[in-house]
Amino acid sequence: MYRYKITFAYDGANFSGFQIQPHKRTVEQVLKNAVNKIAKNPDPEISVIGSGRTDAGVHALNQVAHFDIPYKLSNESMRKALNSILPLDILIKKAELVDSDFHARFSAHRKTYRYRVDQGEFVDPFKRNYTSHYKIPVDVELMRKASQDFIGEHDFTSFVASGSQAKSNVRTVYDIQIRRDPANNEVVFDFTGNGFLYNQIRIMVAFLLEIGSKQRPVDDVKRVLAAKDRTQARMTAPANGLYLVEVDYGSTDKNIDEQ
Amino acid sequence: MYRYKITFAYDGANFSGFQIQPHKRTVEQVLKNAVNKIAKNPDPEISVIGSGRTDAGVHALNQVAHFDIPYKLSNESMRKALNSILPLDILIKKAELVDSDFHARFSAHRKTYRYRVDQGEFVDPFKRNYTSHYKIPVDVELMRKASQDFIGEHDFTSFVASGSQAKSNVRTVYDIQIRRDPANNEVVFDFTGNGFLYNQIRIMVAFLLEIGSKQRPVDDVKRVLAAKDRTQARMTAPANGLYLVEVDYGSTDKNIDEQ
Repeated sequence: MYRYKITFAYDGANFSGFQIQPHKRTVEQVLKNAVNKIAKNPDPEISVIGSGRTDAGVHALNQVAHFDIPYKLSNESMRKALNSILPLDILIKKAELVDSDFHARFSAHRKTYRYRVDQGEFVDPFKRNYTSHYKIPVDVELMRKASQDFIGEHDFTSFVASGSQAKSNVRTVYDIQIRRDPANNEVVFDFTGNGFLYNQIRIMVAFLLEIGSKQRPVDDVKRVLAAKDRTQARMTAPANGLYLVEVDYGSTDKNIDEQ
Repeated sequence: MYRYKITFAYDGANFSGFQIQPHKRTVEQVLKNAVNKIAKNPDPEISVIGSGRTDAGVHALNQVAHFDIPYKLSNESMRKALNSILPLDILIKKAELVDSDFHARFSAHRKTYRYRVDQGEFVDPFKRNYTSHYKIPVDVELMRKASQDFIGEHDFTSFVASGSQAKSNVRTVYDIQIRRDPANNEVVFDFTGNGFLYNQIRIMVAFLLEIGSKQRPVDDVKRVLAAKDRTQARMTAPANGLYLVEVDYGSTDKNIDEQ
């Protein structure tokens, strides 16, 4: 068997998330169908292992997965073969033959997610699936200041959705960048960490927006992290503004992502 | 009865075009449903008259329509009432009470359409519904030069699709702008005229792309216009790159649009 790592983008608008579910169109299912077609439908079927799940409506610029296949193709032939089968809302950007100890999920050691917030007065029909909409003007400086309290290793119990199956809520956030994109009238958040809990980024974004619009004090992140109580950070920003930007395999640290 | 002019944007991806058709989701039908709901479902139903049709997949930034309704609302109340009913892929940008001699189609005297062409190596999943894809590099200067031969009053018989019901194929093109959008790796065409025939812009774009990629000589527009023969300009660029940008009612010239 040959193990391939694939790096791919998808528009999450018409997918019921990454993970296979009965009777739903999911990214994992569509990829699995394509890989098995290339492998001439072997029994048992080939599985595709993603770096982590994404929810319905969440997008990816560079998601990563791996699979084992009994045929050896050049990287370029594998990329082309997959793209020729896949629908237009998934694009394989890279396919690489890798060592059999590479694992898309366990070998990942950091991930970067982006969250786009449109500040227009109305929901732009062309952005309805690609940004969330928050028309209250926000103070980016305030949010930057507050976001620094998320940096480092913390127990994110206050910032995880109830469906999480994580054994531990301790995660490390390495970096948060927040910038205005004036051309698109957006505020864009980039989060890098060793892994994120279920809905953690969407809850952190909603929290920062409350700080940016002065509905919470700038030092509220510290208090709510310490509280370890999900009811303290009530809101979750919608899925449609979230993008998995990058999965980094530069070290052998374990990835513990659940986003 | 009170006549309202509405200016609105729509993402054409999930519409079977503008015009009402049985069992299809169309812009006209969705608007008509909303207007009749506001008017408490009168019998006979209120009609919504657009400035012109757009095909399935074609978008609008500022389409215009009018309707007559027995209730007088402030412009702002009318805009809000419609937006509160309409789905998120249509946005009413403006509603204006107008004189009863205003007619969205017959009062229009010029229209501007945009066509976006992505030059990336692959189809970007996030652009699949919003640009056409043409990966052969094109020479914008050559296309600009060629496009000048479309300016003015011409018989566009060579540049109209076979489904056209126009009595005359004579139209006036006032302006064509072609520019690179390097940030998005796109070439963007803007066409302004007194009206465009069925598929005229998409056929002109495909023709200009053939010139830009040196598959036709730069002076071929003149020859093909003179031929008055649709088989000379064979290709039609896809619907998904086309946007109705503006309908101008500044004069009383008749609009004769069929795009």
